Amino acid sequence: MADVQDVERELGRLLSSQARPRVLAEAMRWAVEGGGKRIRPRICLAAAVAAGGSSADALLPACAVELLHSYTLVHDDLPAMDNDAERRGRPSVWAKFGEANAILAGDALQALAFTALAQAPERRPGARAKMLEFFARCAVGVVRGQVEDIAAGAKDVPFIYEHKTADLFMAAAVTGALAGGGDDASVEKLRLFAYHLGVAFQYEDDLLDDDSPFDRDETARRVQSETDAALAALDGLPGDASPLAALARSLVNRTK
Amino acid sequence: MADVQDVERELGRLLSSQARPRVLAEAMRWAVEGGGKRIRPRICLAAAVAAGGSSADALLPACAVELLHSYTLVHDDLPAMDNDAERRGRPSVWAKFGEANAILAGDALQALAFTALAQAPERRPGARAKMLEFFARCAVGVVRGQVEDIAAGAKDVPFIYEHKTADLFMAAAVTGALAGGGDDASVEKLRLFAYHLGVAFQYEDDLLDDDSPFDRDETARRVQSETDAALAALDGLPGDASPLAALARSLVNRTK
Repeated sequence: MADVQDVERELGRLLSSQARPRVLAEAMRWAVEGGGKRIRPRICLAAAVAAGGSSADALLPACAVELLHSYTLVHDDLPAMDNDAERRGRPSVWAKFGEANAILAGDALQALAFTALAQAPERRPGARAKMLEFFARCAVGVVRGQVEDIAAGAKDVPFIYEHKTADLFMAAAVTGALAGGGDDASVEKLRLFAYHLGVAFQYEDDLLDDDSPFDRDETARRVQSETDAALAALDGLPGDASPLAALARSLVNRTK
Repeated sequence: MADVQDVERELGRLLSSQARPRVLAEAMRWAVEGGGKRIRPRICLAAAVAAGGSSADALLPACAVELLHSYTLVHDDLPAMDNDAERRGRPSVWAKFGEANAILAGDALQALAFTALAQAPERRPGARAKMLEFFARCAVGVVRGQVEDIAAGAKDVPFIYEHKTADLFMAAAVTGALAGGGDDASVEKLRLFAYHLGVAFQYEDDLLDDDSPFDRDETARRVQSETDAALAALDGLPGDASPLAALARSLVNRTK
């Protein structure tokens, strides 16, 4: 069994393998150890269990997803992007280490995510290739969502949510399911679950920030319908899906 | 048999899979189709042959290495880094598409490199995991070299050359050897070859740019000794290493 404490320890091990130059190691650590809620690693571990495997098998994919998520935040904060000098109550990476080092720390975190993925076990023949291809596709996808988000003019909001948020949720669920030895049907159920949960999570964020592309009632209705679709996708999985369902409910009930 | 024309075609296919948002697709294509010499893909294809396999097996790793190389150039050119508005006689990616899109296009190119790698064949059990882990380690390494390069104060020049240049050459040779079905001994010979060739290539660059950390004679001596070491590493490979040796000689005789 692995939990979020194991993820923290494993992230520390992966980061300490990059000791030099020191400023890079420090910037990478600053980005990852900023006190995030580790939502995506939790999804990854619980998906392995729901697919019939063990959460321990998903430890490295869980780290990979968090490293990927961390890099996107480092780059999103840059002056050329959102120009945020703070994140979670402390200086963002560029504000603390300079813009060039922040760009490079983000680049290295993306590469380190794939290093973590390479070390995951392969419980079913072909699972590693599938894991890698899906994860890499989501890594491209999250950038596609960000490009659309910063574009001038009318934005395609569903496209942004699908890619900026749901792609990382799907990367977590699918790599977790594959690492846990899940069959194709389980992997697809968990992908669908994560897609709907990611979209629900983003609409919930809009409610919390009072910054929605729709009116509040319409947004709340979408949170509900996407959450229902996510939970429905969990039917018929070979493992225990109740921890994953509980996690999903906690993520979309943040306003209540 | 695959050659550099096949690499161009395959790169086109990989890039066309990212059609939206259009500005991202265009920026990625601009970065990759700028008329580079495709040195690293050539090393990759020839390494597969030297390891006893077919160059066709190394087509996707060859694309992966070129995509990774392209992303590093996009980020190196950024205003926060080298601030180069031109590359190879035309606007650099940030000068043409804006700074934010250039950061993001680089990010997507790195992810697309791993997508390409995921699609490579696996001719020997475990080769994919090794390929991925080595490639990802080099992808971190190239960033470590760049961070050291832009640092203020005294620089560790061998460290910079080892990582900024040799890591990508090694990624090319090792993934090519693994994709071609090479055994551990062949992979290690080709890794060593690429390490020395990368360092020789960088010293040769210094001679061409007349911008060397050592005097010209010392630099020329290093080009020679590193080239000798590279060629010596090719002894005893199961496949035909002569195309790789010829490529190596052409790369370090650019001043003559």
